[in-house]
Amino acid sequence: MNNKIGPLNNTLDRCVAVIGLGYAGLPLAAVIANSGRSVIGIDVDKKRCGKINNGINPIPEEEGLDSLVRAYGGKTLVASTTYQDAKKCDFFIVIVPLFVDENNQPDFSMLENAFRNIGKVLKKGDCVVLETTVPPGTTETFVKDWLEEESKLHVGEFYLAYSPERIMTGVSVSRLKEFPKVVGGVDQHSGKVAFDVYKQFIGNLSLVSTARVAEFIKVIEGCYRFTNIALANELFKIAEELDLDFYEARQHANHQYCDIHLPSTGVGGHCIPVYPWFLIKEMEKRKKPDFTIMLQSSHGVNDGMIDYWIQRIIVYCKEVKKPLPHVKICIKGISFRKGVKSVHKSRNLALARLLKEKGLNVYVYDELFTRDEIEQMNLSFSTPDMVDVVFDPFTLELMSQESR
Amino acid sequence: MNNKIGPLNNTLDRCVAVIGLGYAGLPLAAVIANSGRSVIGIDVDKKRCGKINNGINPIPEEEGLDSLVRAYGGKTLVASTTYQDAKKCDFFIVIVPLFVDENNQPDFSMLENAFRNIGKVLKKGDCVVLETTVPPGTTETFVKDWLEEESKLHVGEFYLAYSPERIMTGVSVSRLKEFPKVVGGVDQHSGKVAFDVYKQFIGNLSLVSTARVAEFIKVIEGCYRFTNIALANELFKIAEELDLDFYEARQHANHQYCDIHLPSTGVGGHCIPVYPWFLIKEMEKRKKPDFTIMLQSSHGVNDGMIDYWIQRIIVYCKEVKKPLPHVKICIKGISFRKGVKSVHKSRNLALARLLKEKGLNVYVYDELFTRDEIEQMNLSFSTPDMVDVVFDPFTLELMSQESR
Repeated sequence: MNNKIGPLNNTLDRCVAVIGLGYAGLPLAAVIANSGRSVIGIDVDKKRCGKINNGINPIPEEEGLDSLVRAYGGKTLVASTTYQDAKKCDFFIVIVPLFVDENNQPDFSMLENAFRNIGKVLKKGDCVVLETTVPPGTTETFVKDWLEEESKLHVGEFYLAYSPERIMTGVSVSRLKEFPKVVGGVDQHSGKVAFDVYKQFIGNLSLVSTARVAEFIKVIEGCYRFTNIALANELFKIAEELDLDFYEARQHANHQYCDIHLPSTGVGGHCIPVYPWFLIKEMEKRKKPDFTIMLQSSHGVNDGMIDYWIQRIIVYCKEVKKPLPHVKICIKGISFRKGVKSVHKSRNLALARLLKEKGLNVYVYDELFTRDEIEQMNLSFSTPDMVDVVFDPFTLELMSQESR
Repeated sequence: MNNKIGPLNNTLDRCVAVIGLGYAGLPLAAVIANSGRSVIGIDVDKKRCGKINNGINPIPEEEGLDSLVRAYGGKTLVASTTYQDAKKCDFFIVIVPLFVDENNQPDFSMLENAFRNIGKVLKKGDCVVLETTVPPGTTETFVKDWLEEESKLHVGEFYLAYSPERIMTGVSVSRLKEFPKVVGGVDQHSGKVAFDVYKQFIGNLSLVSTARVAEFIKVIEGCYRFTNIALANELFKIAEELDLDFYEARQHANHQYCDIHLPSTGVGGHCIPVYPWFLIKEMEKRKKPDFTIMLQSSHGVNDGMIDYWIQRIIVYCKEVKKPLPHVKICIKGISFRKGVKSVHKSRNLALARLLKEKGLNVYVYDELFTRDEIEQMNLSFSTPDMVDVVFDPFTLELMSQESR
């Protein structure tokens, strides 16, 4: 290891610190360990660190992660809650969450904390890469400032780059091996240093011109999905109004030049519904709100889907021979995505809550949540077989007791 | 040939009439002739009919069409301006244009004329298929009524189906052989009869449940493209505002799950900008204008692109050391799409006109149009080398005399 700027090939055997061992960070840390290098993982969660150091995978649903954590955990992949343990590292990757507040403004506090802590142990010649999805420009402004302030070093003395995570919960390990990934530096040298190290463990890596472009790439990919889900929701509503089968039409409309997405109750989770706000808020700041019409409209359509479904559910309930407030309704799924045990920004949870607010007799069932967990959310639990009407938000099927 | 409803296989050697021998109709008629059957083509254009009957292809830019017209024109592919010449046919395909009026309402007059004329020669057991892209529901309502009124027959005595053309100017012949195509009947029997005949000359054919679904399939395919072009235009504007290279970002954002389209001056031509109106107007009629937010927003964004480009051109002109009204500007392209000699709903033509209205010194150049043709549009002609600033609407490049 070297404390001064040396030839680039010296960087190839760097010890890597990965800050954040969550759904995105741990698979990355494990894949880096698997490439033969030492990894120090930093996470606030002491219990999680303990598990990893004992070779126990805290994210069992992540395919291929078990064997990696078993092989390297506590050996070349050491988890810790203290940044001081990363002091000897010279390559830092930050992959902590970025949330938006109630006004859809990004809350940088976790990122700032991570970078200020890195700044305290940063040495000349070190390289820092951010992977968290952020508004374009974040790395070259905020991140640079935090690191320079704490380290008393300047970019040029250390390297700074951005490489967006492209994980997909459940298949993150294989994604790191195969899926296209980009990296861009705040200056050319930074990009090259980060690229040379990343290509040791990322299968399909491209160097792009700047960190800002790399940030933009990730955000617009999410905007594409968000907008196309809004379009699918809109076309679904029109198809239902025209009394034709949306899914049949979609199957035949889609081909190599057409990719109509699937309709839903809206878009939840940490990622897709958040990224459009990065651009909407930035353009608002620049007095260009008319540059984000499609993104704003997509929010309107996607966020409005729970109102649409409430109307559909109420119409359906009127078929049941009971006064409406007595009709037992079960929402069969509250996680934001099928198979992921999280209700973060879940539109399905929002749907259940709104039905309850409207005085309807609503129950919730989700195979990933216990009765206790559902009741702690202040909702009533019921299995689908005990109610009059079931709505499955993942298939968008409405079923009555009689029809089943 | 049989005049009564017989077993389906009797329909397989039917003589086919194709109504409309334009960009979509002639390739279809030629491909049907190539499958070994007799085709009568009906078109209002006498000169065009004469050419075809002499084996001369009136659409030379259509790949593979020359040899088909040479082989069958005037032999098994006979063009005529009179419907009476199609009297002996028992399979009718209508593929005439549908325009929208200044209020974006479809103008069905050409379709009505075609079907009423077919109705006059329609016999029991005949089958009629519409290929023109139309608002969902058109075949089972208007078309059925026109045919039944004129023929005094009822669906059941004749067959009626819909199969959207999926041509692409220039590659229509190969599209008919390979590209997925659907057909759906106004009743089950109609769908089956049309399917059995079509599959004799269409390579990749699917039978869908109804004519209405088949109509919807074609319309939503266009809506997908229109909306995604609007998204691309919006993301392009944001990228320029953030001072980063949209095309670099797009290249890396796109992968198997992401297909960000190309930005433009908006969307022109007969097809893509028209289809969203079919759904917008139908939902307006049903008092559901909030079901077409994405489509309406896409129109706003795409139609507004020429204002955006005018601003960009003016800012660029200010770099030239001349008073703004003296800066010679050349718009290098006015057709609605590169390589297609048509200005139908062309946003590039609209851009040139708007620049002129604003008192700017604007010239037009287009390799597909002569000086005379451009001057007949009440625009000034100039080659790009004679002006100060050139805007290429197909590449979106702005160039000054100095920079070239």
